[in-house]
Amino acid sequence: MAERPLYLGVDLGGTNVKLGLVDDQGNPLASASMPTDVPLGAEDATRRIGERARALVAEAGAALDDVPCIGLATPGTMDVPAGMLLEPHNLPGWSHFPIRDRLSHYCGKPVVYVNDANAAAYGEFWKGSGAELSSMILLTLGTGVGGGILVDHHLIDGAHSHGGEVGHIIIDSRDDSRLCPCGQRGHLEAYASGTAVIRRTEEALESGAKTSLSDRMEQGAELSPLLVAEEAQAGDALSLKIVENTARYLGIGLVTLIHTIDPDGVVLGGAMDFGGHDSPLGRQFLDRVRDEVKQRAFPVLAEKVSIDFALLGGAAGYIGAAGVARRQYSARASQ
Amino acid sequence: MAERPLYLGVDLGGTNVKLGLVDDQGNPLASASMPTDVPLGAEDATRRIGERARALVAEAGAALDDVPCIGLATPGTMDVPAGMLLEPHNLPGWSHFPIRDRLSHYCGKPVVYVNDANAAAYGEFWKGSGAELSSMILLTLGTGVGGGILVDHHLIDGAHSHGGEVGHIIIDSRDDSRLCPCGQRGHLEAYASGTAVIRRTEEALESGAKTSLSDRMEQGAELSPLLVAEEAQAGDALSLKIVENTARYLGIGLVTLIHTIDPDGVVLGGAMDFGGHDSPLGRQFLDRVRDEVKQRAFPVLAEKVSIDFALLGGAAGYIGAAGVARRQYSARASQ
Repeated sequence: MAERPLYLGVDLGGTNVKLGLVDDQGNPLASASMPTDVPLGAEDATRRIGERARALVAEAGAALDDVPCIGLATPGTMDVPAGMLLEPHNLPGWSHFPIRDRLSHYCGKPVVYVNDANAAAYGEFWKGSGAELSSMILLTLGTGVGGGILVDHHLIDGAHSHGGEVGHIIIDSRDDSRLCPCGQRGHLEAYASGTAVIRRTEEALESGAKTSLSDRMEQGAELSPLLVAEEAQAGDALSLKIVENTARYLGIGLVTLIHTIDPDGVVLGGAMDFGGHDSPLGRQFLDRVRDEVKQRAFPVLAEKVSIDFALLGGAAGYIGAAGVARRQYSARASQ
Repeated sequence: MAERPLYLGVDLGGTNVKLGLVDDQGNPLASASMPTDVPLGAEDATRRIGERARALVAEAGAALDDVPCIGLATPGTMDVPAGMLLEPHNLPGWSHFPIRDRLSHYCGKPVVYVNDANAAAYGEFWKGSGAELSSMILLTLGTGVGGGILVDHHLIDGAHSHGGEVGHIIIDSRDDSRLCPCGQRGHLEAYASGTAVIRRTEEALESGAKTSLSDRMEQGAELSPLLVAEEAQAGDALSLKIVENTARYLGIGLVTLIHTIDPDGVVLGGAMDFGGHDSPLGRQFLDRVRDEVKQRAFPVLAEKVSIDFALLGGAAGYIGAAGVARRQYSARASQ
């Protein structure tokens, strides 16, 4: 039997909206996904999310009265305390929209607002790979590098809703360092994201490196982190080097973050995990990240900070959003 | 009239121990300094600190009953929750000493333990340059680069007492980047500390750069950040370039920290402030740091995060230690 109260988490992305109902322990009871349909506009999407949320609660055999509040995660830029989307790159046309209060209107429930990467960090911290930790850094490896930071069980939201922009720490300050999609140079994301993996591989191919990737691409395969992973797994030296260098860059960035935060542990999430725990390549990748940190971090931290893959996959965002809502509700209730 | 309760802060360094009594608002009522006399050992020093603390309270016309607890700041390595010095580099022979409980024994008061750089950060946050902020990064510029971080009024002590090691973030990950005194390469401290200023100046002199520093040194002056500051002030181009590059490196490190923490403000403390607010060179240095951050940080953060000099000088440590004690006492009292 699910422990009440229940919490509903909404993870709104540029393509899909994921919704999930969890119990007071963070166990998922029901979930759903729907297209964001960005061009239809923010108001329309928010109305549809409200409807889907109500339906999901009913489908789970629960009542709206069981759900004291809803957690909403969106990408930035945003103003968390104001509950506003500002100029979200992935949601064109949705600028300066008071999404928190509009969703509250459509659901008839208070809504707690949180950055999507921070929500994922909270999800892993609450119910995933970080469940035994009291402070944690999440890096989400995908097209870009995102993440979030928890210290003493609190998310670092940031004074201007930009806490934990861990993809945008500088790992190389030379004038000719790699350009990040954000427009600045030398950021971790410019070296360790999926986009960066493709770019670094292209450069190696342009320089004439011998690799089975060329054969695959001549046969019509598209260059992607997955293709690089496949060829690395199959023994291609260049592909393996690309994977290892990605781990090395991540390790360098992690040392900076570990020396700043000194967390109990680090969690690596996102699709670009080279197969994660279930794959020899993924485990090799993780070991290489750990090695780089061991070589570069203060000895006591190198020894004690855990580094592991995330566990929740795409559910981290809505579980985390629900968890942030629960936390705020509990804090209010205990006052 | 000083508002009671009063708090006593102790800032223990490798050369001196500073003690200060502050009121409930953080206003200093009395302070004292005494030699650490490291070779006499940890037990002896702790006993002397206890005696001096009791005397200081009496000199201020207060009673020990007015002081519910004492804050003790020391350099690391340390175990904050255990109240232990581990292997403090600046306190040779004091390894694995339970300094918190021994001081409590000699004072007859509970003692709250904190890292010295974090105490300085708390001091500036409570009563100094950060008094209007709710989150803050302090960088202390001296022989090394230290500092501390506050998020939502809480110090980041770290899970292993290594929170806020801001001098040891990586700003250059090349294999040939500068060696930090900690033994690793590319850290902010290896570029922006007083030691790094001297090293970078020596390199410029060795490469035959024309500079009035050579004349001063031929006249017997020792190369130091102060000498570089004097010659920069007097118009020496090389010295000014050294100061500006120091600001540039700091700006690079700050961008990483700002993107990680997103604080309300940054405070620059320590002796190596090139004269600080009171000097044209100090103000030029600060402007150059701000410029570097403006050029490299996310626009909203570049615009909103304040960057200023510290205000409390050498008193930051004991005021902060007293403040940390007060905070812990208040938290207990309100439970």
